[in-house]
Amino acid sequence: MRFGINFFPTVAPSEKTGAAYYDECLELCELAEALGYHHVKTVEHYFFQWGGYSPDPVTFLAAAAQRTSRVRLVTGAVIPTFNHPIKLAGKLAMLDNLSHGRLDAGFARAFPPEEFEAFEISMGESRARFEEGIEAVKRLWTEEEFRFSGSFHQFGPHPALPPRPLQQPHPPIFVAATLNPVSFEWSGRMGYNLMIVPQMSTHSHVAALVAAYRRAWVEAGHQPGTEQVHLTCHCYVASDSASARRRGRVFFENYQAKQLQAIAAWSKYTSDQYPGYEHLVQTLAQSTFEAGVAEQKLLVGDPGEVAGQLEVIREHYGDIEPSLLVNFGNMPNAAVRTAELFARHVMPRFDPSSREPERC
Amino acid sequence: MRFGINFFPTVAPSEKTGAAYYDECLELCELAEALGYHHVKTVEHYFFQWGGYSPDPVTFLAAAAQRTSRVRLVTGAVIPTFNHPIKLAGKLAMLDNLSHGRLDAGFARAFPPEEFEAFEISMGESRARFEEGIEAVKRLWTEEEFRFSGSFHQFGPHPALPPRPLQQPHPPIFVAATLNPVSFEWSGRMGYNLMIVPQMSTHSHVAALVAAYRRAWVEAGHQPGTEQVHLTCHCYVASDSASARRRGRVFFENYQAKQLQAIAAWSKYTSDQYPGYEHLVQTLAQSTFEAGVAEQKLLVGDPGEVAGQLEVIREHYGDIEPSLLVNFGNMPNAAVRTAELFARHVMPRFDPSSREPERC
Repeated sequence: MRFGINFFPTVAPSEKTGAAYYDECLELCELAEALGYHHVKTVEHYFFQWGGYSPDPVTFLAAAAQRTSRVRLVTGAVIPTFNHPIKLAGKLAMLDNLSHGRLDAGFARAFPPEEFEAFEISMGESRARFEEGIEAVKRLWTEEEFRFSGSFHQFGPHPALPPRPLQQPHPPIFVAATLNPVSFEWSGRMGYNLMIVPQMSTHSHVAALVAAYRRAWVEAGHQPGTEQVHLTCHCYVASDSASARRRGRVFFENYQAKQLQAIAAWSKYTSDQYPGYEHLVQTLAQSTFEAGVAEQKLLVGDPGEVAGQLEVIREHYGDIEPSLLVNFGNMPNAAVRTAELFARHVMPRFDPSSREPERC
Repeated sequence: MRFGINFFPTVAPSEKTGAAYYDECLELCELAEALGYHHVKTVEHYFFQWGGYSPDPVTFLAAAAQRTSRVRLVTGAVIPTFNHPIKLAGKLAMLDNLSHGRLDAGFARAFPPEEFEAFEISMGESRARFEEGIEAVKRLWTEEEFRFSGSFHQFGPHPALPPRPLQQPHPPIFVAATLNPVSFEWSGRMGYNLMIVPQMSTHSHVAALVAAYRRAWVEAGHQPGTEQVHLTCHCYVASDSASARRRGRVFFENYQAKQLQAIAAWSKYTSDQYPGYEHLVQTLAQSTFEAGVAEQKLLVGDPGEVAGQLEVIREHYGDIEPSLLVNFGNMPNAAVRTAELFARHVMPRFDPSSREPERC
């Protein structure tokens, strides 16, 4: 089982400058590499205290590429709807080259209504723009002299878009899916890897969606077992259980308050493109730290407890790759301790063959 | 007098991978810092062998930020016309934070007709989109809860766009100007710093435009002498004059052939937004390496000769900051030699107080 670190910034300018936040995260990238994590990842969001420090994940990951030499760099995710495909294909290919072929290109649809408003794009076009955007990027990476005639963008024929990705024919593609069965099945059919966030539902429910994704993957003729599934969850580890819970709760509740602010618009919004999201605010407002831990949606505790929580997750999903949110809720340096304790005491239980990670 | 290194890629995928090209450039960034250069810079272009390896300058500079700690990082330039202002303000602010406040934000209008076609934007809107784009980015950096009602983008009111730039109130703004008197005067009036490329004209002509820029700067009430002017020119230095000319010519002619390809469309194109550009192809096709050196538009020779050429440039323009193109035309590692010879033997003549640069 492989693990990664997921940077989902939840800090406000009044709490921490961007420079201070990125410095922390880049140090965590170096640490992640030294400790044997497999990937680092970050998000694309705007304006909110929830995610807003990462309006361009490629910019952060280009910096991370120079601080690391082995970990995979995952856009988790870029939003085709808010980026012209030529722009997106170009900068992702740059990142793939700047990192010597370490890009995993994750794409998502976005969902805060205010972000669609800011970019003057109708949420009704969300799925169509997303699917067309990924197709355009893939063709720009691999083809030349083609004419792209989409519903939202038309271009070409042009010479090949430079630089070509270093990974040939193109970097692995990941797709974010949260609640919508259509997203899971489509991703499997297309042969895209998956990024899931079970926070808003139950593991049983999301595991059923992942099973449907895997069926669609196989039915479409993709090689069984080669699909990758990343699972995002918060993780707070301390040497003793009580302090992990006491301190983890503070940062989680800070995170959750910012998240609620970012999704508040969904309390007065419905869209056939986002079935179920009309319950989002209520679901999130009612979810507590205790319930999250009890239901193994938050990994919190001493190393033994966290290993037990992970066992339950593995039973639900089979072979997945957790993307651990270790730096959340304006946390003062506690993320380093979690990353270290997890790597030293939890990771080896899920990969008995793994070498003891380097000390640093 | 301060100097910088300007990366204007002119390599094709068949010649060199992006990874190989960026590795060279990032090593040059480290070298530039060690040798006492003041800035590194790169461009935004698409599809062509001329510039095409840099579809997103911010991505490259975010990587360069982690390889350096002192040099200024200059977008030379980003193109507001091809980037949504929210996207552009966000990633430039990320870069400013990732580099601890070293961003000089250069903006340009773009001019290859094929690029406008690819992004489905009329060249007739070029200046209006450019001016509106810079204004939007500046307001996104500095204001909050404002409504932006431009001709091309409308958004807000929103909370402040995070992250805020580290440099307050915002990073220095530079504007590219080539031939058009309107651009020079507007830049001065607005209090923007200037990036010029005299390649397509004569030093006398461009110096007159810079003089007009400086007059406009002062007349608009900006503090005299605080304006910064970057001047881009090719530079090839060797220990002996003959080999500098012999080898410099090969790479320059390779560069020029790719540039001609990129601007070829201007032989059948006119636009009131780009007065004089209808002569571009002819001007460039007729310009030779010898004439370029004789007219001090290319800095080529042994260190003494290059210092003499720079003296002439300084007489034309007064205090400017050259952005040296040292890595041009699919060059195999010769750029390092130029950067070193220039720093050791030319730079000190223009700053007698400067310390001997560190050996590396």
